[in-house]
Amino acid sequence: MASPGDATPDDADELVRYEVTDGVALITLNRPERLNALIPGMGDIYAGLLHRADADPQVRAIVVTGAGRGFCSGADLGILAEGREALDGYLDGQSVETLPTAALRIGTPVVTAINGPCAGIGFVLAIAADMRFAAPSATMSTSFSRLGLIAEYGSAWLLTRLVGLAAATDLLLTGRTLTAAEARDMGLVSQVHEDVVGAALAWAHDVAAACSPESMAVIKRQLLAVDGQDLADAVDTSLAEMRASFARPDLAEAIMAKVEKRPVAFPPREGA
Amino acid sequence: MASPGDATPDDADELVRYEVTDGVALITLNRPERLNALIPGMGDIYAGLLHRADADPQVRAIVVTGAGRGFCSGADLGILAEGREALDGYLDGQSVETLPTAALRIGTPVVTAINGPCAGIGFVLAIAADMRFAAPSATMSTSFSRLGLIAEYGSAWLLTRLVGLAAATDLLLTGRTLTAAEARDMGLVSQVHEDVVGAALAWAHDVAAACSPESMAVIKRQLLAVDGQDLADAVDTSLAEMRASFARPDLAEAIMAKVEKRPVAFPPREGA
Amino acid sequence: MASPGDATPDDADELVRYEVTDGVALITLNRPERLNALIPGMGDIYAGLLHRADADPQVRAIVVTGAGRGFCSGADLGILAEGREALDGYLDGQSVETLPTAALRIGTPVVTAINGPCAGIGFVLAIAADMRFAAPSATMSTSFSRLGLIAEYGSAWLLTRLVGLAAATDLLLTGRTLTAAEARDMGLVSQVHEDVVGAALAWAHDVAAACSPESMAVIKRQLLAVDGQDLADAVDTSLAEMRASFARPDLAEAIMAKVEKRPVAFPPREGA
Repeated sequence: MASPGDATPDDADELVRYEVTDGVALITLNRPERLNALIPGMGDIYAGLLHRADADPQVRAIVVTGAGRGFCSGADLGILAEGREALDGYLDGQSVETLPTAALRIGTPVVTAINGPCAGIGFVLAIAADMRFAAPSATMSTSFSRLGLIAEYGSAWLLTRLVGLAAATDLLLTGRTLTAAEARDMGLVSQVHEDVVGAALAWAHDVAAACSPESMAVIKRQLLAVDGQDLADAVDTSLAEMRASFARPDLAEAIMAKVEKRPVAFPPREGA
Repeated sequence: MASPGDATPDDADELVRYEVTDGVALITLNRPERLNALIPGMGDIYAGLLHRADADPQVRAIVVTGAGRGFCSGADLGILAEGREALDGYLDGQSVETLPTAALRIGTPVVTAINGPCAGIGFVLAIAADMRFAAPSATMSTSFSRLGLIAEYGSAWLLTRLVGLAAATDLLLTGRTLTAAEARDMGLVSQVHEDVVGAALAWAHDVAAACSPESMAVIKRQLLAVDGQDLADAVDTSLAEMRASFARPDLAEAIMAKVEKRPVAFPPREGA
Repeated sequence: MASPGDATPDDADELVRYEVTDGVALITLNRPERLNALIPGMGDIYAGLLHRADADPQVRAIVVTGAGRGFCSGADLGILAEGREALDGYLDGQSVETLPTAALRIGTPVVTAINGPCAGIGFVLAIAADMRFAAPSATMSTSFSRLGLIAEYGSAWLLTRLVGLAAATDLLLTGRTLTAAEARDMGLVSQVHEDVVGAALAWAHDVAAACSPESMAVIKRQLLAVDGQDLADAVDTSLAEMRASFARPDLAEAIMAKVEKRPVAFPPREGA
C-alpha cells in the first residue's frame, strides 16, 4: 500500500484503493464515512482500475470490496439531490464500458466481497461482477422504485439472466432489502462468510493458480454472447472456440502437469 | 361489494369479483363450486378488470385470488370436451393483451394469492403475474402434457425466464403437481403463508405506499424488454430511462421525504 | 441384451449399450474401466442411439447412464493429448444434431441418471438432457478452464438457460467440482437418489404411461424456440400450437379416460 501523503493512484486517501498481491488485484471503494456512496468521477476511477488490472499480465483475478462497514450504499444522496441537469450531466459518456458494468467486459474474473450495505448503483456494481460473496450481516437492495427511479445500468437485463425473472421482478419492483441469507437462497450470492474479503481473496488465488487466464476470458465472452443465439448457433460458435483453444499451449500444459503430478502453470493471456 | 340481484360488474353473483380498498384492487375468480375453472368469457372479464384497475389512478397494486378452496383449476372440463371447432372458436381474438398474460402488459404490479389448486390456464394466469404467494396447501400443475395439450399461452417462454429451463422442462414435460413448498424452493412462488390473501394484500399495500407507481410501470416494461437485447443495448436503454426518471418529480419527493422524516407520497402514474 | 460375441449394436462388449423395456430405452455408456470417458466415434454411437430410440414408436422415454462407478468423465485424456490436428479432426462434422446436444433435438424425453463422476463432455451430455437425477456420491464439473479449454458444445448457452447466469458463471469460470447436493440446490439436478437408475427408470415409465408423446415432443420444441421471441411472439406461436393440439385425438382420449376412470392410452407420435 502507498504511504500517507503520496498522491499516486495507490494513495490511501484516494476514493478507490488498488493493490496487487500474488496475481490478485484488490480494489477497495474508499469513502467509509459515507458507506462508500459514489460521488462523480468515482465510478470512472473504479472502471479505470478494472481496466488497469485487466491489462496487467501479473493479475489473474480481481476482488472488489468496500472500506469500513459498508460495501457501497449507492449514489451519494447529496448528488441525487442536485437535480435533473446535474444528474443528466453525470450520465454523459457513460456506457457498458464504464461504471458499473465494466467488470463484465474485461477478461479477468471479478469477485465482489460484499461486506455491508449494497444498494442502488452499488447493487449494480455487485451484480455486474462475475461472482458475489457476502458477509452474514451484508444487505442488498436495488432501492430504485423507492426513490422514484428505474432499473438502472442494465440491471433488469442482468438480474433476469443471473437469477431469473421471478426473483428479478421481486427485487426491482419492490426495492426491498435482502439479507445475505436471502441473497444466497436466491442464487444472487454464491457464498456467505464472516471473513468475506478473506474468502474472496482465497477464491481469487485459487482461480489464479488453477485456471487458464485465456480460458476464463473466452468463457466470460461466451457467457455474454449467448443472447440472440439459438442452441445451434451456440454450438457452432463454441466449436470454433474449441478449435482456437486447441491452437494454444494451455491444454498441453494442463495434461503435462497431470502427467508430471505438478501444479499447472498456464501462460498469461495474450494481449493482457 | 354489490348486493344480490345487482347486475353491475361488482355483483356477488358474477364470474369475477372486483373491489378496491386503500389503493389496492382485489380481483377474485368466482366459480367456487368448480374450483374457479374458467368458462368462455371469464378470461376476458378478468383481463378487462386488470385494465380497469390499471386505468384507475387510485389503484397502485392488484391482488388476484380464487373464491372458496381453489385458485383456478384450469379451463372447465366441460368446455375442453366440446371439441375442436368450439375450442378453436374460443381462441379467436386472444392475444398477449388478453387472458392470461394481460397482467404483464399493464403498469400496475399484480400479485397472485394462490389459495388452492392452480392448474392449466390457472397456472398460466399465476405465472403471468408479477409475484406469486401460495397457501401451504396450494398445488400447482401445468397439466398440459397429461391432457394431450402443449405449453399454452406463452408458458414455455414465461417459465424459462421465471425459473430457468431446468425447472421449466420438469414442469412442462411431466405436467406433475407441485406442492407449495416445492414451488417455493424452485423460486416459482416467493412466499408461503397460511393467510395467503392477507399476505398478498399486505405486500400490495406496502408497494402502494412505498414505491413510485411510475417507477414500477417502467420497471415492468424494462423486465419484458430484455429479450433480444445484449448487455450494451440494455445499458443504453436504461440510461435513456434514467434521464426520463430525472425529469419526473418522484426522486425529489423521495429525497424530501427522507430529509423531512415523513412517509413518501409519490404522484399517480401519468396516463393511469 | 445381446450375448457375448454378438457384433450387433446390442453387444454387451460395445461402447454404448442399448435396451428397450416397456416403452423405455436405457442407453448405457460402456467403458467402465475409464469411467466411460469418450473416445472418437463413441459420441456418434450415442447420438445414433438417441435417434434410433426417437424413431421407435414403442419408445416413449429414454434413460442415459454409465456402466460401473462413473457416468462419463469427459473426453479420454489420451485423446486430448493427441494434439491440435487430431482434435480438430474429431470436430469435423459435429453440430447440434450430434453429440452431446442431440438429446434436446429429438422429440422423446431424455433423463440422465448420473451415477458417478460427470465432467467435461460428460457434463455437457448431462446438461443437454431434459432431466438430471444424481446419486448422492455423484460429482459434476465442467473442468474446461482447468484444462485450458473453453465452454464447449454450447454449454455457456445451456447452463445460462438451465440455472441462470450466476450459477453458470461459477461453474464455467472455476471448473470446480460440485457434489450432488450442490447440484440439487442449484437446480441443475432435479432429484438425488441412492438408486439413481431405478429412479430415472421410474420417472421414464411414469411419463411414458401418463403423458402424450406428441405433447412432450411439441413442448421440447417450444422450450428450445423461446430464444429470440418476445412474450407476444411466444403467445402467438403457442396459440397456433394449441389449435394444432385440438386437431389431434389426444385431448379427447384424456377426457374419456377421466370419464371412464381408466388409465389414459395416448397414441404414439406421428412420424415416430
